Amino acid sequence: MTADRDPSATSVDAAWLERATALSVNGPAYGPNPRVGCVLVGADGTMLGEGWHRGAGTPHAEPAAIADAAARGHEVAGATAYVTLEPCSHTGRTGPCTDALTRAGVAAVRYAVADPNPEAQGGGAVLLARGIDARHVPYGPAAQVNRRWLGAVEHGRPWVIAKWAQTLDGRTAAADGTSFWITGEEARAHAHGVRAQVDAILVGTGTVRVDDPELSARPPGDAAAHQPLRAVMGLGATPGAKVWRDSHAVQLATHDPHAALTELASREVRTVVVEGGATVTTAFLRAGLVDELHVYVAPALLGAGTAAVGDLGIGTMAGALRAQDVTATALGVDTLVTAFFQRGQI
Amino acid sequence: MTADRDPSATSVDAAWLERATALSVNGPAYGPNPRVGCVLVGADGTMLGEGWHRGAGTPHAEPAAIADAAARGHEVAGATAYVTLEPCSHTGRTGPCTDALTRAGVAAVRYAVADPNPEAQGGGAVLLARGIDARHVPYGPAAQVNRRWLGAVEHGRPWVIAKWAQTLDGRTAAADGTSFWITGEEARAHAHGVRAQVDAILVGTGTVRVDDPELSARPPGDAAAHQPLRAVMGLGATPGAKVWRDSHAVQLATHDPHAALTELASREVRTVVVEGGATVTTAFLRAGLVDELHVYVAPALLGAGTAAVGDLGIGTMAGALRAQDVTATALGVDTLVTAFFQRGQI
Repeated sequence: MTADRDPSATSVDAAWLERATALSVNGPAYGPNPRVGCVLVGADGTMLGEGWHRGAGTPHAEPAAIADAAARGHEVAGATAYVTLEPCSHTGRTGPCTDALTRAGVAAVRYAVADPNPEAQGGGAVLLARGIDARHVPYGPAAQVNRRWLGAVEHGRPWVIAKWAQTLDGRTAAADGTSFWITGEEARAHAHGVRAQVDAILVGTGTVRVDDPELSARPPGDAAAHQPLRAVMGLGATPGAKVWRDSHAVQLATHDPHAALTELASREVRTVVVEGGATVTTAFLRAGLVDELHVYVAPALLGAGTAAVGDLGIGTMAGALRAQDVTATALGVDTLVTAFFQRGQI
Repeated sequence: MTADRDPSATSVDAAWLERATALSVNGPAYGPNPRVGCVLVGADGTMLGEGWHRGAGTPHAEPAAIADAAARGHEVAGATAYVTLEPCSHTGRTGPCTDALTRAGVAAVRYAVADPNPEAQGGGAVLLARGIDARHVPYGPAAQVNRRWLGAVEHGRPWVIAKWAQTLDGRTAAADGTSFWITGEEARAHAHGVRAQVDAILVGTGTVRVDDPELSARPPGDAAAHQPLRAVMGLGATPGAKVWRDSHAVQLATHDPHAALTELASREVRTVVVEGGATVTTAFLRAGLVDELHVYVAPALLGAGTAAVGDLGIGTMAGALRAQDVTATALGVDTLVTAFFQRGQI
């Protein structure tokens, strides 16, 4: 028995799932857990309590909403719980949300996204078996919030963002090796914001040797930004480099992107930004392991220098790697092009 | 004696110049003449007549507005003429606008842009000498309408738009030479719209040999679109190619971009789109002869193939050609990046 997927979501369902989705984005984008929001609604349509998940080791959205209702002095027995993700049925760092909802006496559950996580899924069926009217009511924006997390769970590996800055003609460095600065302040600030939302940054040993980057997240005005794990891929040693300034760094001693991701997954990395150089980025692209592209394009031409992407083994136009869901965003004089590769497409 | 430049434009001036500018864009963007609009306003603030220039050989905006006022039964003696460009003082295909304004008895003239054309400029001074209160009231949007024409006149050569379609990593063809189609329908339709607004399209003999392009303007839904001159640059003969299907085509038998532009200028070409291949585009860039970039960027990666831009003689990042006034426009899945090079910058 599984919870029905109900395509006939009412406008009431959609309105509460919209609220739950808005709550979900209060949670952190990084970390092993998804972002989840929950709203408890009484039979008379009153909001009784709401909550969201604040990250691994803290209460899930459902118990947070139940606690919020209690703090407001509201009884939740008979209520409907609107949740952005199917309630979990397993004990991880916290207990199963199915149990919390059952204990609270909710009469119905509407969840926007089915949980693809093999360890936690099936919560809808558990609730149904207990006589709770649990239904999957698909709501796209809720899935969008967890696009990277859902992709990581479905692929069984970290979600990979390939990021680079280039001239309009696709060069990441000039003929003499200089690459600072291709893009302007706004573009660099944006890239720091992305770093603060992921679990890891990955570069090759060559980049560490040549650029000695800090690989820290320094979004303007956020001195307390989340700092991702610094991962250096390759076999060479880079003693004394800035990336090794503390223990929040790891060497992935391999040239195989699959092996690198397996190692990162073992450290609970769900999202990683691959920041190059071209050899590393090209290896991930060739292996079909890039999910999302972030290309910062400066309105500049070099005509020579390092190509952003190396040989992909593609010889003809029909074989070009094509990305979808393209967005072009102006960042000062530069343009950020983001796009997604669908699984299996590359 | 020259007409004063009056920085203290009143809101009344600005409002009428805005109207004149809106009229000006009714004229064609192509052709040897600028786009000009004119509004005649009575002493009591009544609009008496308006007009715009419809292209070489037809009346200029000022006589068109005077004729419009007459058709409306309005007397224009004592009126103020708001014009987007300084009235001409020379006899070309039509008589001097300074004379038309004088005969009509206008009391004042406000023009948004001083005419940089050596043959036609000085109209403001002529009017002043005749006792007409002529003033240059700078109004940016009016200049923007004629950006290409003004640039061509100031540079003393055709305005050059370099246009190409590329993958995100800067490739215009795959390793096997295939290049159809990098971009999608929306991008190609946009490029046809640009062709219909310029005087000439220029490609190299190599492009004619390899692609045998029509080089026609085929914007969707506009079967009567203006057709630019087809210009083939280079020494090789390409008999039987589609570009030679009628006499609206010319071979520019040179490898020197300066010589090519001189030849085009002698044919009254004010605006030309250079559409490649990479050798020709690179030659114009190296010579500092590109004013505007139109780069259609597909969300695709090739990793190999023909680079959009060849060697520019630039060895270090600080020497990169930098463009300004960047706009990124979504065209289906593709992104059009437009930008401008300032004279002397390259």
